[in-house]
Amino acid sequence: MNPIKVGLLGIGTVGGGTFRVLQRNQEEIARRAGRAITIAMVADRDIAKVRAIAGDTVRVTANAFEVVDDPEIEIVVELIGGTSIARELVLKAIENGKQVVTANKALLATHGNEIFAAAQRKGVTVAFEAAVAGGVPIIKALREGLSGNRIEWIAGIINGTSNFILSEMREKGSSFEAVLTQAQQLGYAEADPTFDIQGIDAAHKLTILAAIGFGIPMQFAACYTEGIAELTSQDIRYAEELGYRIKLLGVAKRMPQGFELRVHPTLIPAKRLIANVEGVMNAILVKGDAVGQTMYYGPGAGAEPTASAIVADLVDVTRMHTVDPRHRVPHLAFQPDRLSALPILPMEAVETSYYLRMRVDDRAGVLADITGTLADLAISIDAMVQKEPGEGEKQVDIVMLTHLTREKSINAAIARIEALPFVSGKVTRIRLEELGQG
Amino acid sequence: MNPIKVGLLGIGTVGGGTFRVLQRNQEEIARRAGRAITIAMVADRDIAKVRAIAGDTVRVTANAFEVVDDPEIEIVVELIGGTSIARELVLKAIENGKQVVTANKALLATHGNEIFAAAQRKGVTVAFEAAVAGGVPIIKALREGLSGNRIEWIAGIINGTSNFILSEMREKGSSFEAVLTQAQQLGYAEADPTFDIQGIDAAHKLTILAAIGFGIPMQFAACYTEGIAELTSQDIRYAEELGYRIKLLGVAKRMPQGFELRVHPTLIPAKRLIANVEGVMNAILVKGDAVGQTMYYGPGAGAEPTASAIVADLVDVTRMHTVDPRHRVPHLAFQPDRLSALPILPMEAVETSYYLRMRVDDRAGVLADITGTLADLAISIDAMVQKEPGEGEKQVDIVMLTHLTREKSINAAIARIEALPFVSGKVTRIRLEELGQG
Repeated sequence: MNPIKVGLLGIGTVGGGTFRVLQRNQEEIARRAGRAITIAMVADRDIAKVRAIAGDTVRVTANAFEVVDDPEIEIVVELIGGTSIARELVLKAIENGKQVVTANKALLATHGNEIFAAAQRKGVTVAFEAAVAGGVPIIKALREGLSGNRIEWIAGIINGTSNFILSEMREKGSSFEAVLTQAQQLGYAEADPTFDIQGIDAAHKLTILAAIGFGIPMQFAACYTEGIAELTSQDIRYAEELGYRIKLLGVAKRMPQGFELRVHPTLIPAKRLIANVEGVMNAILVKGDAVGQTMYYGPGAGAEPTASAIVADLVDVTRMHTVDPRHRVPHLAFQPDRLSALPILPMEAVETSYYLRMRVDDRAGVLADITGTLADLAISIDAMVQKEPGEGEKQVDIVMLTHLTREKSINAAIARIEALPFVSGKVTRIRLEELGQG
Repeated sequence: MNPIKVGLLGIGTVGGGTFRVLQRNQEEIARRAGRAITIAMVADRDIAKVRAIAGDTVRVTANAFEVVDDPEIEIVVELIGGTSIARELVLKAIENGKQVVTANKALLATHGNEIFAAAQRKGVTVAFEAAVAGGVPIIKALREGLSGNRIEWIAGIINGTSNFILSEMREKGSSFEAVLTQAQQLGYAEADPTFDIQGIDAAHKLTILAAIGFGIPMQFAACYTEGIAELTSQDIRYAEELGYRIKLLGVAKRMPQGFELRVHPTLIPAKRLIANVEGVMNAILVKGDAVGQTMYYGPGAGAEPTASAIVADLVDVTRMHTVDPRHRVPHLAFQPDRLSALPILPMEAVETSYYLRMRVDDRAGVLADITGTLADLAISIDAMVQKEPGEGEKQVDIVMLTHLTREKSINAAIARIEALPFVSGKVTRIRLEELGQG
């Protein structure tokens, strides 16, 4: 059988990796897919770069629309990024009856519903293993490997940049700013790190995981998103003293009235496996009603790890593209007419435990007033530590962990505590997830 | 569309779990598969038990052959275990054109080549996600999720019973025998624990993982297998002092001349995530040339975790059973005419690091003689600890870690050391894997 012909949109880091992996492992891949997979055409503004990577073996254009319109191309790999031109190109490719593979989480989280509906109508596949956790085949695991389960929750370290920063802050006691600069020098963080450190990239990925885990549409706008820029190494140290690590966690949880969808720094018991995922690695913990907890771990970014996921999608698509679409795995795991209409819950309705840190005057009665304030709101305390005051200091840190509390109550409690005359500044609030069995 | 009809062979722990999960999650599963999946017939010697679990909703027989011969049944789930009647039943089901789902690792590791060839000829699928690591979708991850990679090695904790025993021995300092008795009382070990503690069960699973990872036939007979019955809590403690944990590890590795395939107790750096997998949990670390290291973690046994994998297979088979077989994922990941013929290497050719413990007279010159013996065989030492003698003892333990050494050389060294006049008894030898990046 002839090789299946792929058109590549964008040959940056990931595109270059994809080209390299397809070439290096071509025999291995053909032994699996039963057919060779060849990049026949590449679109990139930098024609010289394409030639440097791909030599004369491919057709090259600066105009990506030429690839999606080319009759020879059967699969389009979109690696341009962003949500505007990428959306146009993907929709055009679908309209032209091409299969699509993309690593673009922002595109799918924000325009996925439109894109999958178009693909469904046209009978083509839009594959996106590379959009979440790089080389870790979490999309396949969640969508196919756990298909017997009612998924109860998903909790993931799905942004390597943030995890690297938090790992470094903990290990070296450095400040957020210092580690961010270091991460930028190492190429782990972009010049504009907003998407990573504000939790937006993680929210894109969590939106996708929740959609395929629960069978709900993409609802990025409803995802609560809080980044790591406000975290201090002091909080990381206090958390550690209490037996916890702080991770930027994406949490999607099934509740009776709807689904929680939230990205925020989170205390996790240090003894949990996922709390020990360090550096730029990703890990996703999935709780299913039948299987219990399973975890998927690996590199969440990088040229070849991401290429690994793209090529896996190419192999799947190569096997299945001529098959009647009803035999294929549905894009969002569930048949498109059988998605759940239950809403994403507002953050105020979320119930979790909390880490609270506050700075108070070092005198009698203070603790009683604070615990009284919490008791008034029926918030119960699991652990509390009053730090010793530094030499000559008249104020001390109080750190406490609460039992399960509704976000609305903790917000009210924080407002009241901050209004107390002996409390200085803001109360630091970090959510806590036990991630235990049961 | 009518529900697809499944026949269950054996309704013990896993069969009962499968029945329960299919019933409880029937709506969720149909939303995914696009079609309901129903157990229509059950074969079990204990008819009363079947009725207690399944009520009057299914047809029941004590003769499993009636199920595989029944024209109404489209998928046969084999949960009888063993390699004799199970083999006959599976081959008969295939001959009758049924799809097959099995959790039977012993059967596949020993008769898989025959079974898959028969299935291939007949155009049916034999699915086996539940055969390795229970609910962890490692078969799917390795066979499909990493299909762009040249798999370099696989290292797995794939026997929960052994891992539970080793975890308890380490945490409590108990002896192997004491913990085994406890595991039997808890139901984590069988009355006859041979398959688990001798590494045979792990070798069955490793044989399967190697086949789909490397594209080689099942070669269980060539798998080196060493269990945990000889391990002492002393070795576990010494290993810990050196920064290592001891796990029963299945290791499959690609080498230029062939493949390593071995199950044995293994020292792993305590800082590795997989070294911290405790109790009955399973974890498999896979190194691919593109993706690097990924890890898959979860419950490796139990009624519902195993059922989770069986149902995932049922969903896959339900989607694909009417599709031309060339569109399906090949049983062993690679097209059956494109398997590798490279051999499994003999254990003497394996190169790894070693932990050696020996008991020697506490006097000058002993260490020099031992290190000299090792140097003669070009074995280089990475770390060495001489323990203090106990009160009134005239002998001491020496513990050493070697650099990479060929098994053949270490065997020769051990024979020479044991012949030294000041060495008492046997030298304890445990292999060591760094499992690092690169």
